[in-house]
Amino acid sequence: MIEERLKRQLDFVLEIDREKNIFRQTHLSGHGRNENDAEHAWHMAIMAYLLREYSNEKIDIAKVMLMCLIHDIVEIEAGDTYAYDEAGRSTQKAREDAAKEKLYSILPDDQKRELTALFDEFEAFQTAEARFAHAMDNLQPLLLNNSNGGSDWMEHEVTAKQVYERQEKTRLGSEILYEVTDQILKDNIRKGSLRESDSCLKEKR
Amino acid sequence: MIEERLKRQLDFVLEIDREKNIFRQTHLSGHGRNENDAEHAWHMAIMAYLLREYSNEKIDIAKVMLMCLIHDIVEIEAGDTYAYDEAGRSTQKAREDAAKEKLYSILPDDQKRELTALFDEFEAFQTAEARFAHAMDNLQPLLLNNSNGGSDWMEHEVTAKQVYERQEKTRLGSEILYEVTDQILKDNIRKGSLRESDSCLKEKR
Repeated sequence: MIEERLKRQLDFVLEIDREKNIFRQTHLSGHGRNENDAEHAWHMAIMAYLLREYSNEKIDIAKVMLMCLIHDIVEIEAGDTYAYDEAGRSTQKAREDAAKEKLYSILPDDQKRELTALFDEFEAFQTAEARFAHAMDNLQPLLLNNSNGGSDWMEHEVTAKQVYERQEKTRLGSEILYEVTDQILKDNIRKGSLRESDSCLKEKR
Repeated sequence: MIEERLKRQLDFVLEIDREKNIFRQTHLSGHGRNENDAEHAWHMAIMAYLLREYSNEKIDIAKVMLMCLIHDIVEIEAGDTYAYDEAGRSTQKAREDAAKEKLYSILPDDQKRELTALFDEFEAFQTAEARFAHAMDNLQPLLLNNSNGGSDWMEHEVTAKQVYERQEKTRLGSEILYEVTDQILKDNIRKGSLRESDSCLKEKR
C-alpha cells in the first residue's frame, strides 16, 4: 500500500498534468500553434537560469525556477487570462484564489503551505525572486511574438502603451532585459505590428 | 545594440522553443493527445522537487531540476526515441551527440560547457542527481500511462519484461518510488494492459 503522504503527492502530480491543456494567446515560434501553460513555464524556468546574471538584485535561482514552474498551476481551474484582457483581469484574483485553495489542498499540508506561499510571493511582486520571475513571464512571450513578426499583438489590436505598462515589471527585475524589450518594442512599432495608441488604431480603421 | 553574449543566450532561448514540437509516445491523462518534450520536462522538474524526500541519496535539488528541464533538448535535432524502440535506440547516442554539439554551441562558451556537462552527467547515470532525474524520467510517463489504463503499452505491445528492465534505473534513484512503480506494473499485468512476455503475446495473436 502507498502511504497517505505519497498518495497525495502523486495525486497532485497527476492533477497538474491538466496544465498542458490550458492554452495561451501566444503562438509558438515559426507561426506555430498556441502555446500552453506547461510549455510556457518550462521555457521561463530555463530562461531564468540562463539569464540570471541580468537580474538587478541577487537571487536564489532555484527558488526563481520553482516559482516559474508553478506560477500558472492555478490556471488549471481559473483559466488563462490574457495580459491585455481588462474584463478578465478584474475577476482574475478571485478566480485564482479559489483555484489555489482547491489545487494545492491535494498536497500534504506542509507542501501545500510551501507552494501556496511561493505562488503568493510571485503574485505580491515584493521580492527579488518574484521580480525576476515576472521579467521572465514578460520576456518569454515577447520573444516568441517578436519572432512571429508581432502577430499576437496585431491579432488582439494591442497598443504600445498597454505593452509598455506591462513591461514596467521587467524593468524592476532586470534593467538589461528591459533594454532588450524596449528595442524589440520600438522595432515592432516601426514595422507597424504594434500600434502606438488607440487613437492611431481608430484613425487607420 | 544587444551585446554578443546576450544575443547568443536569446538565440538559444528561441531555438529551444522547438522542443514543444517534439512529440512523445506518451498520452496526456484523460486519454489526451501525445505529450511533447517540453511538457514532459516541466512535469519532471516539479515532480523532482515534490518527491525529493524519496531519493535514495542526498541530492542537490536545483541541479536535478535543471537536469530534468534540459535533458531532452537534444531531441530538437535528434528526435524522440521511444523507450522500447530497439532499432532507434541503437543509433540514439550518435544522433544525440551531434545534436548536443549543434544546439549548445549557440550559447556563450561557458554556458555551452555547463549545460553539455549537465546533459552528459544525466546520460552517464553515475551521480545521485542523475539517478533521481532518471527516476523522474521513468515515473512521469508511467503515471500518465497508468491513468489511461496502460493504453500506451497496449498500443506498442510492450512486455512487462521490457518495462521492468527500464525501471531498474528508478530503483537506483529511489527504492520507494520503485515500490510504487512495481505496484502499478503488477496492477497493469493483472488487468491485461501489460503483457507478461513476448511468448504470451504471440500465443494470443
